[in-house]
Amino acid sequence: MPRTQLTRLREKQYDDRRALDRLLDQARLAHVGVVVDGHPVVMPTAFARLGDLLVVHGSTGAGWMRTVAGGADTCVTVTALDAIVVARSAFESSMHYRSAVLFGRFQPLAGGAKEDALALITDKLIPGRGDEIRPSSRKELEATLVLAMPIETWSLKVSDGWPEDEPDDVAGPAWAGIVPLREIAGPARPAPDLAAGIAVPESVTRLVDGRSASTGRAGCAERG
Amino acid sequence: MPRTQLTRLREKQYDDRRALDRLLDQARLAHVGVVVDGHPVVMPTAFARLGDLLVVHGSTGAGWMRTVAGGADTCVTVTALDAIVVARSAFESSMHYRSAVLFGRFQPLAGGAKEDALALITDKLIPGRGDEIRPSSRKELEATLVLAMPIETWSLKVSDGWPEDEPDDVAGPAWAGIVPLREIAGPARPAPDLAAGIAVPESVTRLVDGRSASTGRAGCAERG
Repeated sequence: MPRTQLTRLREKQYDDRRALDRLLDQARLAHVGVVVDGHPVVMPTAFARLGDLLVVHGSTGAGWMRTVAGGADTCVTVTALDAIVVARSAFESSMHYRSAVLFGRFQPLAGGAKEDALALITDKLIPGRGDEIRPSSRKELEATLVLAMPIETWSLKVSDGWPEDEPDDVAGPAWAGIVPLREIAGPARPAPDLAAGIAVPESVTRLVDGRSASTGRAGCAERG
Repeated sequence: MPRTQLTRLREKQYDDRRALDRLLDQARLAHVGVVVDGHPVVMPTAFARLGDLLVVHGSTGAGWMRTVAGGADTCVTVTALDAIVVARSAFESSMHYRSAVLFGRFQPLAGGAKEDALALITDKLIPGRGDEIRPSSRKELEATLVLAMPIETWSLKVSDGWPEDEPDDVAGPAWAGIVPLREIAGPARPAPDLAAGIAVPESVTRLVDGRSASTGRAGCAERG
């Protein structure tokens, strides 16, 4: 985990499905682990949550997608880093994070479920973008593999406390606190082949304003 | 990968060790995959690069650390998301990313190499912090497991182009471009038990100023 040791004391195991869903709906990236010829392979991928399904997409030609689509045991890990914990010792310095580990098997989606999942993945990447662009073509849908894994077997760990320094360190001269981390987006940069007179669309304006791009939280005031 | 399909055309495979090192030195998080009882397990962890070694640390009590320390085949994946690619179709919309996949086996470090690795991990988390705090105690060092994997077998993939829309879409009314992503840190929040009169240290001021916290790049002007 992204921490130093003994912060296990601070780490909490959550069985709150809503907290899991918040993380899954917020994080842009999942890391998908499979076993190939006995060896572990971990690949990054965009993903989205469609109710009780975790969905990913990719080219029908991508090797790891084919392994996963074949029903292999899969581990999907989604991690958000929310803050740096600046303690009075290296040992207690760590990070605020939320980390979900899900186990299961993926199955391909088809028809309307496939189209719903693709729309959701696009909307997670650029909220509202689906209303501004043409629908996907039949050819594009056929070239896309969409896979879904039930959200059934999972664990969620959250580290969000203040530094937990030893009394001797608390009495010493070193500063302690947290430094929240968050993602910002923008400014938007038009493509070189963009025709004159096409304005930045609402979806991109919202993304740059940060109303949908934040991955960080305020920190531990609510909990600390 | 964090993309839609056919962006494989845009994805480049790099064999540039310096580009790999830049990513490893910049990213805060690695996802470590191992096989446990035949099943894939993927755990997030902080890490650092010590020359030709990738180093991680954790509690001597952490289960996945023990598996990795035992010399199991391991896959370490490090991914940075640099921008959202806003194309004129959902199909071509994707992300700029850099993704390194390393294969190998970890071995425990001891003595001076262990202390060097820990100092490096702290310095990566909070650059300059090591000079502001006391050295780690013998007891702290003994409670910490530090593992190193040689950086030998790896691949690096980079996606950093402009949207590659079909001519019909380029001629249409939809906007296209990229929205860079970056991490910002701060403002720093003092711990509730911080004694009065202890100022925010230089390391934290630097972190908040963003001089060391950026994970994003300027985008594709340099390459596009």
